[in-house]
Amino acid sequence: MKPFSPHPRETVAQHGEVALIAAIRRWLGPAAPPSPAGMGDDCAVLAPLRGKPLVTVDPVIYGEHFDDRNSPQEAGTKLFRRNLSDIAAMGGRPVAAVVSIACDPSLRTAWLEGFYRALAAESRRLGVPVVGGDIARLRGGLIATLTLIGRCAGTRAVTRHGARSGDWIYVTGDLGGSLEGKHCRFTPRLAEGKWLARQRAVRAMMDVSDGLAKDLTSLQPPRSLALLEEAALPISPAARRTARRSGRSAAAHALTDGEDYELVFAVARDANLAAFEARWRRAFPRLRLSRIGHFAAPGTPLPVGHTTLQEHRGFEHLRRDSTRRQ
Amino acid sequence: MKPFSPHPRETVAQHGEVALIAAIRRWLGPAAPPSPAGMGDDCAVLAPLRGKPLVTVDPVIYGEHFDDRNSPQEAGTKLFRRNLSDIAAMGGRPVAAVVSIACDPSLRTAWLEGFYRALAAESRRLGVPVVGGDIARLRGGLIATLTLIGRCAGTRAVTRHGARSGDWIYVTGDLGGSLEGKHCRFTPRLAEGKWLARQRAVRAMMDVSDGLAKDLTSLQPPRSLALLEEAALPISPAARRTARRSGRSAAAHALTDGEDYELVFAVARDANLAAFEARWRRAFPRLRLSRIGHFAAPGTPLPVGHTTLQEHRGFEHLRRDSTRRQ
Repeated sequence: MKPFSPHPRETVAQHGEVALIAAIRRWLGPAAPPSPAGMGDDCAVLAPLRGKPLVTVDPVIYGEHFDDRNSPQEAGTKLFRRNLSDIAAMGGRPVAAVVSIACDPSLRTAWLEGFYRALAAESRRLGVPVVGGDIARLRGGLIATLTLIGRCAGTRAVTRHGARSGDWIYVTGDLGGSLEGKHCRFTPRLAEGKWLARQRAVRAMMDVSDGLAKDLTSLQPPRSLALLEEAALPISPAARRTARRSGRSAAAHALTDGEDYELVFAVARDANLAAFEARWRRAFPRLRLSRIGHFAAPGTPLPVGHTTLQEHRGFEHLRRDSTRRQ
Repeated sequence: MKPFSPHPRETVAQHGEVALIAAIRRWLGPAAPPSPAGMGDDCAVLAPLRGKPLVTVDPVIYGEHFDDRNSPQEAGTKLFRRNLSDIAAMGGRPVAAVVSIACDPSLRTAWLEGFYRALAAESRRLGVPVVGGDIARLRGGLIATLTLIGRCAGTRAVTRHGARSGDWIYVTGDLGGSLEGKHCRFTPRLAEGKWLARQRAVRAMMDVSDGLAKDLTSLQPPRSLALLEEAALPISPAARRTARRSGRSAAAHALTDGEDYELVFAVARDANLAAFEARWRRAFPRLRLSRIGHFAAPGTPLPVGHTTLQEHRGFEHLRRDSTRRQ
């Protein structure tokens, strides 16, 4: 759906701010608790949090993260889920969201309704209320920014720092070709993240948003590099289809396309991998788990069938030549 | 400063994302704690909060909340302070901020530096770290969105709901003419908000952001209206100057200009006002406090020298005809 309309009657400019906020509350329904626990006061007042708070923020921007080919529902779902994926990557639980929208006054009211109804559906599914927000004018543009508050689910948050040389690298699901649809319809790995945070052998974790080749450098311990076993890479069918059109290899798409929103994590080198993998399969029988390589000291001879990250690069957000989307 | 430059060398497009994030960390300095307490992981992990968490979010948008006449420092200061004002309005304490920026790749690096250095200065002054954020591309625009996490300072958060018919209406500081400069240089009333939350007689509170005439309707108890004593309105010198140019009354400017970021609150009708006002003067000898009217049942005859809100209207954020800024 094109977000903007040339017909003023179809647009948010028709409504005063008070009427628009009332409509947003209606679209959110039970996802928006009454103030002061939700919208309608200067701040939302949350119930005391058990455990350490987690905070993450990410936007969706028209022309960058979605476009005319996407429905407003897809934009809203993507916005909520990319933030949920960040909470999942720490092994946390989501608690509450606030959403700030800035849009041209020619934004279709129907677009905004679809967007908020998608947020409401995510909110209900997960029991994570939308407790506040803001709507403001941005001439010629459309951006929605969601801040998600969470909390540590167990005794720890799993950070990106903690992997050691020799540790094994695992990734959930499969990778690449997300522009075929997954970038708007992925499943944040919340249950998996919480489960992994309870496994002592898991030393570091993050989600794959900019492509494994770029993101994995953040998980890499100092003075070591990631050696990836090419045959073990979980290449998605979408990556294979994309490769047939692009002329690049399916593995290159799996490593660099980004927006996979899977979890990549390091498992202690001395862990009992067979037992760990068996526990995973019992807990998540339907989600693929791949051991894709390990961290090694620099200068380690490259084993047969392995590759390093140097040859690949993920998405750069601000380069003028970025072409991942549109 | 014009935020955008036609010379690519002066712009953020020159820098890769990694280099830009490293620069942002440098500009923030001690305001950005190391991960996982700060930037650099999927979420920021905060220390456990004492008291109920507070959450608020507000953006600053180029062309709406600031323009070429404003320095990047003013934009950054305004962004932090308008959110601090929301925490103040609940009587809370600010704890941590996350900042999401979306900008055209032609944004001047110098603009971004000035902006972040202003956030750093606010952060240091108040001991409120910037724990996370995001930078993304928005073609042709510039918006920064700050989410502020706080906590209740004492036993309660003061909400907008709680005033009763007969209660007195007070406001801090003076009102109107904020476009002359206050809209970028106001002082959030944090100490005052905390103090007011400890006064039992204070029944409801909010900050004045869209103009008293509009905002006060949110404080109004059901089946009552605000009667304002015109002579008691704290009209700012800037409102008087603006009135001389606009042809409207200074009182009208005080009631509708908005962006005052003062606190307006209701005091119980049976409170000892003299004692309350004396305590205020001891606590805040340099900040004006004005009793500007009271809430009354509809149909109450309008006392001499009083006005109602019906005649005035604050800022409507999405109307095409809004002209408050630019």
